[in-house]
Amino acid sequence: MKIKVINPNTTEAMTQSIKHAALLVAEDGTTIEAVSPRMGPVSIESHYDEALASLGVLDEIRRGEDEGTDSYVIACFGDPGLDAARELTSAPVLGIAEAAFHAASFTGRSFGIVTTLSRTLGRARDLVDAYGFSKLCVSYAACEIPVLALENDPQTCYRKLETESKKVLAESGADSIVLGCAGMAGMCQRLTEALHVPVIDGVEAAVSLAQALVRMKIRTSTTGEFALPPAKPVVGLLQPFTLDGADS
Amino acid sequence: MKIKVINPNTTEAMTQSIKHAALLVAEDGTTIEAVSPRMGPVSIESHYDEALASLGVLDEIRRGEDEGTDSYVIACFGDPGLDAARELTSAPVLGIAEAAFHAASFTGRSFGIVTTLSRTLGRARDLVDAYGFSKLCVSYAACEIPVLALENDPQTCYRKLETESKKVLAESGADSIVLGCAGMAGMCQRLTEALHVPVIDGVEAAVSLAQALVRMKIRTSTTGEFALPPAKPVVGLLQPFTLDGADS
Amino acid sequence: MKIKVINPNTTEAMTQSIKHAALLVAEDGTTIEAVSPRMGPVSIESHYDEALASLGVLDEIRRGEDEGTDSYVIACFGDPGLDAARELTSAPVLGIAEAAFHAASFTGRSFGIVTTLSRTLGRARDLVDAYGFSKLCVSYAACEIPVLALENDPQTCYRKLETESKKVLAESGADSIVLGCAGMAGMCQRLTEALHVPVIDGVEAAVSLAQALVRMKIRTSTTGEFALPPAKPVVGLLQPFTLDGADS
Amino acid sequence: MKIKVINPNTTEAMTQSIKHAALLVAEDGTTIEAVSPRMGPVSIESHYDEALASLGVLDEIRRGEDEGTDSYVIACFGDPGLDAARELTSAPVLGIAEAAFHAASFTGRSFGIVTTLSRTLGRARDLVDAYGFSKLCVSYAACEIPVLALENDPQTCYRKLETESKKVLAESGADSIVLGCAGMAGMCQRLTEALHVPVIDGVEAAVSLAQALVRMKIRTSTTGEFALPPAKPVVGLLQPFTLDGADS
Amino acid sequence: MKIKVINPNTTEAMTQSIKHAALLVAEDGTTIEAVSPRMGPVSIESHYDEALASLGVLDEIRRGEDEGTDSYVIACFGDPGLDAARELTSAPVLGIAEAAFHAASFTGRSFGIVTTLSRTLGRARDLVDAYGFSKLCVSYAACEIPVLALENDPQTCYRKLETESKKVLAESGADSIVLGCAGMAGMCQRLTEALHVPVIDGVEAAVSLAQALVRMKIRTSTTGEFALPPAKPVVGLLQPFTLDGADS
Amino acid sequence: MKIKVINPNTTEAMTQSIKHAALLVAEDGTTIEAVSPRMGPVSIESHYDEALASLGVLDEIRRGEDEGTDSYVIACFGDPGLDAARELTSAPVLGIAEAAFHAASFTGRSFGIVTTLSRTLGRARDLVDAYGFSKLCVSYAACEIPVLALENDPQTCYRKLETESKKVLAESGADSIVLGCAGMAGMCQRLTEALHVPVIDGVEAAVSLAQALVRMKIRTSTTGEFALPPAKPVVGLLQPFTLDGADS
Repeated sequence: MKIKVINPNTTEAMTQSIKHAALLVAEDGTTIEAVSPRMGPVSIESHYDEALASLGVLDEIRRGEDEGTDSYVIACFGDPGLDAARELTSAPVLGIAEAAFHAASFTGRSFGIVTTLSRTLGRARDLVDAYGFSKLCVSYAACEIPVLALENDPQTCYRKLETESKKVLAESGADSIVLGCAGMAGMCQRLTEALHVPVIDGVEAAVSLAQALVRMKIRTSTTGEFALPPAKPVVGLLQPFTLDGADS
Repeated sequence: MKIKVINPNTTEAMTQSIKHAALLVAEDGTTIEAVSPRMGPVSIESHYDEALASLGVLDEIRRGEDEGTDSYVIACFGDPGLDAARELTSAPVLGIAEAAFHAASFTGRSFGIVTTLSRTLGRARDLVDAYGFSKLCVSYAACEIPVLALENDPQTCYRKLETESKKVLAESGADSIVLGCAGMAGMCQRLTEALHVPVIDGVEAAVSLAQALVRMKIRTSTTGEFALPPAKPVVGLLQPFTLDGADS
Repeated sequence: MKIKVINPNTTEAMTQSIKHAALLVAEDGTTIEAVSPRMGPVSIESHYDEALASLGVLDEIRRGEDEGTDSYVIACFGDPGLDAARELTSAPVLGIAEAAFHAASFTGRSFGIVTTLSRTLGRARDLVDAYGFSKLCVSYAACEIPVLALENDPQTCYRKLETESKKVLAESGADSIVLGCAGMAGMCQRLTEALHVPVIDGVEAAVSLAQALVRMKIRTSTTGEFALPPAKPVVGLLQPFTLDGADS
Repeated sequence: MKIKVINPNTTEAMTQSIKHAALLVAEDGTTIEAVSPRMGPVSIESHYDEALASLGVLDEIRRGEDEGTDSYVIACFGDPGLDAARELTSAPVLGIAEAAFHAASFTGRSFGIVTTLSRTLGRARDLVDAYGFSKLCVSYAACEIPVLALENDPQTCYRKLETESKKVLAESGADSIVLGCAGMAGMCQRLTEALHVPVIDGVEAAVSLAQALVRMKIRTSTTGEFALPPAKPVVGLLQPFTLDGADS
Repeated sequence: MKIKVINPNTTEAMTQSIKHAALLVAEDGTTIEAVSPRMGPVSIESHYDEALASLGVLDEIRRGEDEGTDSYVIACFGDPGLDAARELTSAPVLGIAEAAFHAASFTGRSFGIVTTLSRTLGRARDLVDAYGFSKLCVSYAACEIPVLALENDPQTCYRKLETESKKVLAESGADSIVLGCAGMAGMCQRLTEALHVPVIDGVEAAVSLAQALVRMKIRTSTTGEFALPPAKPVVGLLQPFTLDGADS
Repeated sequence: MKIKVINPNTTEAMTQSIKHAALLVAEDGTTIEAVSPRMGPVSIESHYDEALASLGVLDEIRRGEDEGTDSYVIACFGDPGLDAARELTSAPVLGIAEAAFHAASFTGRSFGIVTTLSRTLGRARDLVDAYGFSKLCVSYAACEIPVLALENDPQTCYRKLETESKKVLAESGADSIVLGCAGMAGMCQRLTEALHVPVIDGVEAAVSLAQALVRMKIRTSTTGEFALPPAKPVVGLLQPFTLDGADS
């Protein structure tokens, strides 16, 4: 099967790290296509960045539909564009925050999230609530490192991540840690060994669950909210986002 | 004071209807600037449309900051781009769904939403939950009319709206009705008279509440989640969305 | 328009402070009538005080209906008598706790309440839950000062208020502070400047929202729970509360 | 032990019915003192009636403290004055709505409430939510009969009650029925036999639980919210409600 | 009336302590039969222990039905086998966690649980949530003592219990303490005196409430979920659990 | 990898159907070991049956630990013994209700459950709430067929299942259907084709997710609630359940 892993930011180095994590859990016969969109911010650290990044994600989903894609992964912890992506395809689309929460719920009673900047924790809370994981997620923490520092200074970042994670475990008694950024994927194994509890990388979780859903032949329902969007004109800068069948 | 009312879709006729509703509640000394964005879909009927429309909203917020705007209203019932808009300005930004729910909570114990297409009710539910109105909102209904039909065939649309609203009142005992689309603003008074219960138009609600917040000098907090987004390069089609201070 | 602001306690000095706060947000053409009831406790610091104060509030609502009142504000943070008041009039009635929570929800993701005595925090929690603000209100704190000390020793009180507010912000990361007593209204501006985050005074919030609702012509629904109470005999000390149309 | 059962309305005939129900569950050695207050409405069918009735309840609690009372029951389904009553005494105070919900929770997974007027269902919902029974209470129904009709025309009322109760069971699958008015106490046994499911009368429930709490020596905590109210002047008509220790 | 108090573990000394607590609240005319099951673990400190203990409980319920039992108490804080027990009899069955929560809700706004081992707090949380007490239970604490230490070294255990309880009260402001283990029953009075707030022993609570329910003639509903289980073959080691009417 | 699928009832024919469903989603290299326990009821249709079946499940988990098992599936929709099983092994253990809910959450906004007997819906609701899927699960329905009828008269059962499922979709607008019994696994594909929405069989879901978790190397956390149970004597009939290290 073919899984398209979309890194919603436009930093190619991070896309390669994400691909590496995805390959760790790929089954024989699974092709991982990891891409950055053709447009958007170099990192995602605000609601504004997410709004921009959503467009790039949707562009890649549309392209993926011409390429025989079996499932899509949106590899940013804010799951940007997820609902809209599910309208564009009935192939399973998974956000890495969503996937990480699902995976973490199998590790015990509770998990804590450790992310980059505290300003993004609001979005994490919204997703936890919207997806139904409020009782499970007992701690939200941030290392106060910018996303791209994970690529540029991984040693310093790892140390902060380990420190914050240990604090979360000590104070909340969480059974596991969820990594709050796709850029942390490469630190998952080392952190697992340091903490002696399960550590969940959303990229691995999403790719694994994507494979599971494809195997089960489960697709997004197309009878209601997630039917194809009505085709209509789109004007101005965004005219290229006009869907087939619409006059622009 | 100056209130900028952004119709997130690009249909100028609807922008004029929205402006008309806004003026109904404008205080002496309030200037209403009603605009459609320079880009985006002609109507908003899906998560995909919302993602696109968010960009146009953010573009108008950025322009508004150069124009001495005191408050912003996002006049689409999905409140597209609201969180990101609040990062770009500390002036109050109100979505019309959000404002309508707040206003409706003063009419009694419960309200029902009547909107255009049932496929958009999922978004309405998400907003009701996220904003804290789950106990108050006791009914979700749709007329199954496309958004632009509200402009093109208002008589037929009104009849469907009245029929659905009466059904909601009879079955749920709701104390009031919230109109689920900015395009219904012009039907608010007639429907109020027909139903004998309060009917809430989100445009009037948002403009009224915007004036109230400006009068109270209450602005969005800038110390955490809603501080200005980190400036950074944005590439490709969306390069114009690069914020000042970033290299692209 | 005419707004009647009812200070539910019988301390006239506090009524004047409340009137002062109300006038800060009054539009041109708004008349503020600030009153203390003809009966009741001199301050409200317990459920018992609230039960007594409710009667005074209802007495003033009944008198207000003969005076052409457009909207009512109940200026005590426990919102005493609010539901009953809404039965006696279809003009909007707003409690200052309720109004403050609504206003605070536009300042960001979360707020904290700082009040006088900790024994009143239970009531604050009940209102937060009942009105739907449980996710938004992330901190409850008390200065342990009696209500009337706010009038008698404002400097000491202000210092305690500032200290507690800073603690709330530091520990909870709240985006704004809600003042938990009408008697704190005069300290709102100074505290805003000291804290660098929005501070919400419920009196200003309620008067502002009252004006907004009147402008929108939104009234309490009279078709169900908030219809006029059935007229019936009331005996004993409370005989004066017999409604017109009832034999006593 | 001595249990004081306060019928918050001033209709003596109903007080006698309530006393009769209380005696059905009184242990040997329990004295039931059933009273109507010296003031207040003849029946309770609105928030306004509840606010008035609260005063009469509090008056009776204060008198009860001089009479060596071991526990109090507030025998109106809106539990008027309950929080304030708990401040005035550390003896257990039970509302009949509260007690009925607790008892019903031992009958299975769910219960439905059948009450007099639908306008009082809002209060019932508030109590269900505030006390934590939202998942258990799966149906709210009203017979649309005034409270005093239960005394004046019991046969007609019983028939409506049975009809509504059967509808609730058929539509919701509830395991039991909670009677939504103290005036229905006399119909409990007959209805139980007609429905073949448990029917809960709040008066019996409250008296039974009161005895249980006294036996356990459990009293209301006096260290926080439910400590004695601060003594202070009360003026005007309500001056008699001044607590000992206060100057009026 | 006859109440059968089942200590789900097989340690007879603890059964005697439990009986002692039960007798403290027994009415004249109540017979307390306290038993340990014929099978199962000597203490209950894990989900595994609970699963095993459930069988012993069900065995005793079945035997109790031949002995004219009026009500059953399951005297372990995990309420093992409660739902199944309610299928086997329509006599009231009460778990001590459940009963303690109900009793504690009459002591004020909030309670805290202090138990033996922290690994059992997950079960406590599940019960609190499932029974509807999430808002009331504000603190979960453990003394980290094994259950049987309560019998073997009560002085040390009591000191730890008092220390933890004081910490709970200081940090959470809870109005009362719920003892999280049937083995703590004998420490209830001493702890009440030390803490000056109500302390709830679930054994006393359950026996008291059992008596109250019997007095009210309230039984478990038999029309739905809690009807007798369908009779059917049970094979292997558990063959003795085959219900009458089934071929094995 | 080796996945042990435990059918908690002792009907071998159903175990074979379950194995068949499991094999549909097994990866190359996955061995499916499907077993019925050595003890317990022939079908699971009550809380009593679940309590008995839990023991058989735990027996099989213990045996599985000696057989190099990588993951376990508990193939009964009540997830009997799940928490206890997770204490006995750190290999992932999945219940089919739990797994089905997780899988269904990727099909859209909502799902409905269609099960065998309505008396089991209470357990389904408990699991939905405990696992965090309350918003997603919008309908609960039963075909009123005994579990073993699925083996003995599949045609009649299928027709009832299809009828009920269509009713659920029409009335609730659910995006997908979750099959509420492992015995329905063989009907999943046919029903999917008849309904044109995703249908989730918990067996396939659990096996797929088990493979995903093993691939991710995620195990149950052993640092808290799900550490190995303390070893201790177990007496009587259940003596064989004594864990290694304990004296019995």
